[in-house]
Amino acid sequence: MTPLRVAACQINPVVGDLDANVTRITAAARDAAQRGAQVAVFGEMALTGYPVEDLLLRRSFAVDSRQAVHELARSLDATGCGDLIVVVGFLDRDPDAPETSTNPTGGARNAAGVLHGGELVARYDKHFLPNYGVFDEKRWFTPGDRLVVLDVDGVRLGLTICEDVWWPDGPVAGLGGLGVDAILCLNASPFEVGKPAQRREVVAARVAEGGAPLVYVNLVGGQDELVFDGDSFVLGADGAPAVGPQFVENTQFIDIEPRGLARAATVDGWSVTEVPLPARPTVLADPSTSWTELDELAQIWAALVTGTRDYVHKVGGRTVGLGMSGGIDSALVASIAADAVGAANVYGVGMPSKYSSDHSKDDAADQAQRMGIHFRFEPIEHMVEAFVGQLHLTGLAEENIQARCRGMTLMSLSNLDGHLVLATGNKSELAVGYSTIYGDAVGAYAPIRDVEKSLVWELARWRNRVAAERGEVPPIPENSIAKEPSAELRPGQKDSDSLPDYEILDDILRRYVEQDQGVAEIAEAGYEPELIRKVARLVDRAEYKRRQYPLGPKITPKAFGRDRRMPITNRWHDPA
Amino acid sequence: MTPLRVAACQINPVVGDLDANVTRITAAARDAAQRGAQVAVFGEMALTGYPVEDLLLRRSFAVDSRQAVHELARSLDATGCGDLIVVVGFLDRDPDAPETSTNPTGGARNAAGVLHGGELVARYDKHFLPNYGVFDEKRWFTPGDRLVVLDVDGVRLGLTICEDVWWPDGPVAGLGGLGVDAILCLNASPFEVGKPAQRREVVAARVAEGGAPLVYVNLVGGQDELVFDGDSFVLGADGAPAVGPQFVENTQFIDIEPRGLARAATVDGWSVTEVPLPARPTVLADPSTSWTELDELAQIWAALVTGTRDYVHKVGGRTVGLGMSGGIDSALVASIAADAVGAANVYGVGMPSKYSSDHSKDDAADQAQRMGIHFRFEPIEHMVEAFVGQLHLTGLAEENIQARCRGMTLMSLSNLDGHLVLATGNKSELAVGYSTIYGDAVGAYAPIRDVEKSLVWELARWRNRVAAERGEVPPIPENSIAKEPSAELRPGQKDSDSLPDYEILDDILRRYVEQDQGVAEIAEAGYEPELIRKVARLVDRAEYKRRQYPLGPKITPKAFGRDRRMPITNRWHDPA
Repeated sequence: MTPLRVAACQINPVVGDLDANVTRITAAARDAAQRGAQVAVFGEMALTGYPVEDLLLRRSFAVDSRQAVHELARSLDATGCGDLIVVVGFLDRDPDAPETSTNPTGGARNAAGVLHGGELVARYDKHFLPNYGVFDEKRWFTPGDRLVVLDVDGVRLGLTICEDVWWPDGPVAGLGGLGVDAILCLNASPFEVGKPAQRREVVAARVAEGGAPLVYVNLVGGQDELVFDGDSFVLGADGAPAVGPQFVENTQFIDIEPRGLARAATVDGWSVTEVPLPARPTVLADPSTSWTELDELAQIWAALVTGTRDYVHKVGGRTVGLGMSGGIDSALVASIAADAVGAANVYGVGMPSKYSSDHSKDDAADQAQRMGIHFRFEPIEHMVEAFVGQLHLTGLAEENIQARCRGMTLMSLSNLDGHLVLATGNKSELAVGYSTIYGDAVGAYAPIRDVEKSLVWELARWRNRVAAERGEVPPIPENSIAKEPSAELRPGQKDSDSLPDYEILDDILRRYVEQDQGVAEIAEAGYEPELIRKVARLVDRAEYKRRQYPLGPKITPKAFGRDRRMPITNRWHDPA
Repeated sequence: MTPLRVAACQINPVVGDLDANVTRITAAARDAAQRGAQVAVFGEMALTGYPVEDLLLRRSFAVDSRQAVHELARSLDATGCGDLIVVVGFLDRDPDAPETSTNPTGGARNAAGVLHGGELVARYDKHFLPNYGVFDEKRWFTPGDRLVVLDVDGVRLGLTICEDVWWPDGPVAGLGGLGVDAILCLNASPFEVGKPAQRREVVAARVAEGGAPLVYVNLVGGQDELVFDGDSFVLGADGAPAVGPQFVENTQFIDIEPRGLARAATVDGWSVTEVPLPARPTVLADPSTSWTELDELAQIWAALVTGTRDYVHKVGGRTVGLGMSGGIDSALVASIAADAVGAANVYGVGMPSKYSSDHSKDDAADQAQRMGIHFRFEPIEHMVEAFVGQLHLTGLAEENIQARCRGMTLMSLSNLDGHLVLATGNKSELAVGYSTIYGDAVGAYAPIRDVEKSLVWELARWRNRVAAERGEVPPIPENSIAKEPSAELRPGQKDSDSLPDYEILDDILRRYVEQDQGVAEIAEAGYEPELIRKVARLVDRAEYKRRQYPLGPKITPKAFGRDRRMPITNRWHDPA
């Protein structure tokens, strides 16, 4: 028997842009068909983008999604792909389901539609709805309770969606009992450091449980704070995954041999089999479409660049502006921005005050020249003086007005020229509240808001190394990497005046924020309880500032966004 | 047989302040015991405050909550209230429950603890976990699956928590089958316009279903954007509720007559009965503790004042600052602020530019004098000129820099004097994005962010009327109410240049935002599809600005906060 050719289509949809997503899916499906695929699989909610959030409370949106899936089926048929079986994630909703104040979605479904011959011929609904971290699926969806198996020319394919494969005794076990030849899994799985290995481990357990290989198809691209990395793959019983590329659109081809045993029933070319079949099928991924994984820093860099690029482009922007202080944070953000939208679309502004050192100005200008981005100086002395003189500002008020005059300058230039402003704060700063609200916190997107300070330096060195290996000018001046961190808001100010070394701070933050450890638990790692308490209080009190900080790409389990929801007025302090 | 006296204790806890909450609960319980109560009931999560959000992912917080409930039991016993039965909401968590990445709470419970004789003697876990609107309880809690009935001197009391009484065929039906004499319900039910009537209707259905009267105890006070209005009440089979007051701490006493029939079993003074008992008990609320409901505008005013007061005080503030333009929005916010924290703690700042009319300045000063708040003028011309001159700002950039220089001035004065800045934008503005980010959007709290413009005028007139009735000076100048709305950012500018009449705009917004109607549905109400589409697009595009706007008290189902979660990059437009 000829093997069945399945195409894993990793695409970058735009949330809500149904027409564009239909076009994108049609193009990828047609290309897959032309390259011999009989089945093309797309990611979870590929038709609507993910997550659509409370858009799905709007009945007219669900109606549009339903119409779009039918339009996609017709469009595939019209372009000669009617024979191709397309499996695509979409939002469905029972038009008759009641909406009530305590169940406002009225039966919305996170569904996989099966399209063939110009029609929607089957629908699978996601069983397991994640409701932790960035996910709110119990708010949005009604869970499915049926299994769907497609019989395609004698090869039986079971359908699953994302979280369905993260739990034992779920749909995979059910499909295993039905003896499928392979399991297709549609995903909207956001990137985090270490996520690819985690996916492989979970899927390996399901492959063992279901007794069938699994084709894992993910979305790719940035959506607000989420970055889908792609990383689609196929894993058979031998445990060696054939992995697709991360952070780019791609189609991977997988050939699946049927087991060749009798099946229970076939209705109109589709069936649900009920005969357990022991033999394992052979799965071959096309070696020309298999990739090796990026190293960790390369993955992180790609996530930051992808998140930034897609945010700018998906809101309809083209150019970005940012303040460049000569320090490491703005240097790194400038470099991410240039990789994301192109150096010619990056506008750096040096905004020295009377406290700015000469090296700050030189390093900022040096970097702009290395990278070939636009750059200008706009000294803020006159603006600061107008406030300080009239309002008699001193101390903290005088420090903050400097950061704020910079923010206002960036926003003014943005209003004149249409740049999206990038905020340059890092995660360690954001954690302890060391930023000025309406000052350096100004911006539409914050590329390194989930990057702790230790990692900022590591990424800067890594990016320079990559440039050197390519024979390019390293974008980040050595001075910016080597100098001691300072906000330069008063004479001689240094970060180390009020904070521990960043290696120590970052380790405490990781334990307190990402791992939710208490003071006693963190003290076991050898830190002084007094220091831990100080850091914890800073974190707790900065919640208000974080609420008003721009979004940025998420690369850790607790990026201070949707994944961590804290009260502002909170008087609890871990007493240990 | 003597009736059993139950005290419904409506208190204002502070999220996370376990020690203070223990003290508050002990004091209220002691007072209730002294006034003859045998049972004292507190609200949902009264010990921790509500909602604690992702604080509960921190194991040490759950451990603290558990310790606090034991400490409360001992403290009650030590103050001579050991005989009193106290029912109080708290966070519990199985210390051995595993935490996994897909179930990070490790079995946290939204629990009602029963305290007696210095000990925690029973625990009921909430069955129905709301996961819509502002609620994320499926993220936070594991649902309960047991019923708890207390037998107190022959009177049997069933326990429920909040959402448990919003659904048929739930714990109330179960308790009805057990023949309880009354049902106690612990709530954390936030205010919304119309909510009291809604509660009465739902509880009446449960009273009928359970065949027993229901004692509904709510929290009171503001917590970030939520305002708990209290409104505790008792409802018997006769359908006439005895209602407690809204927006203040209070204890209401209810006498419950037992039915006097045999019960199945008693263990250590506590039992679960299993004998269905048909006769209805008599319930008498102490008439001296029963109140009549406030009218709607008075409820809304109290919610705005309570939310503002508690936000300021719970973050540890005392004084507030705000910009006063002479317009209706800032006039209303000043008046709310004075009612919330006292006129002596309100600092108004008039910040005229060259486009400000004389009446703007006069009206702001007039209001400050009427209300007895602090007031100063800080003209912004020099600051604006510093930016306009150096950066050559024109058009939108020049309009925005005026709003931003005002924001920076308020923040500078806040940094000098420690005021919390209040933002003065209304809901209609916020909806269509007519505010300047980092300008008039500056602030820690936004008292009228959920108040549409039509309601702003209505509340202003109402507040003046109340003052007149009390023989006080009406706080809001007639001029501020009567004048045509204008941002005064360029000569002759009026809101009506670019927006429809606010009555029309607000109706379209209500349908589009609060009721999630589509364009076609809204057009049925008689509006031009072109106008509806324009408004809808403005709303969709302003999501980014709303994310960075300060929180404010929620009074409608869609306050643009936790209750409405939308993507920023969203390209869907209802095409109808």
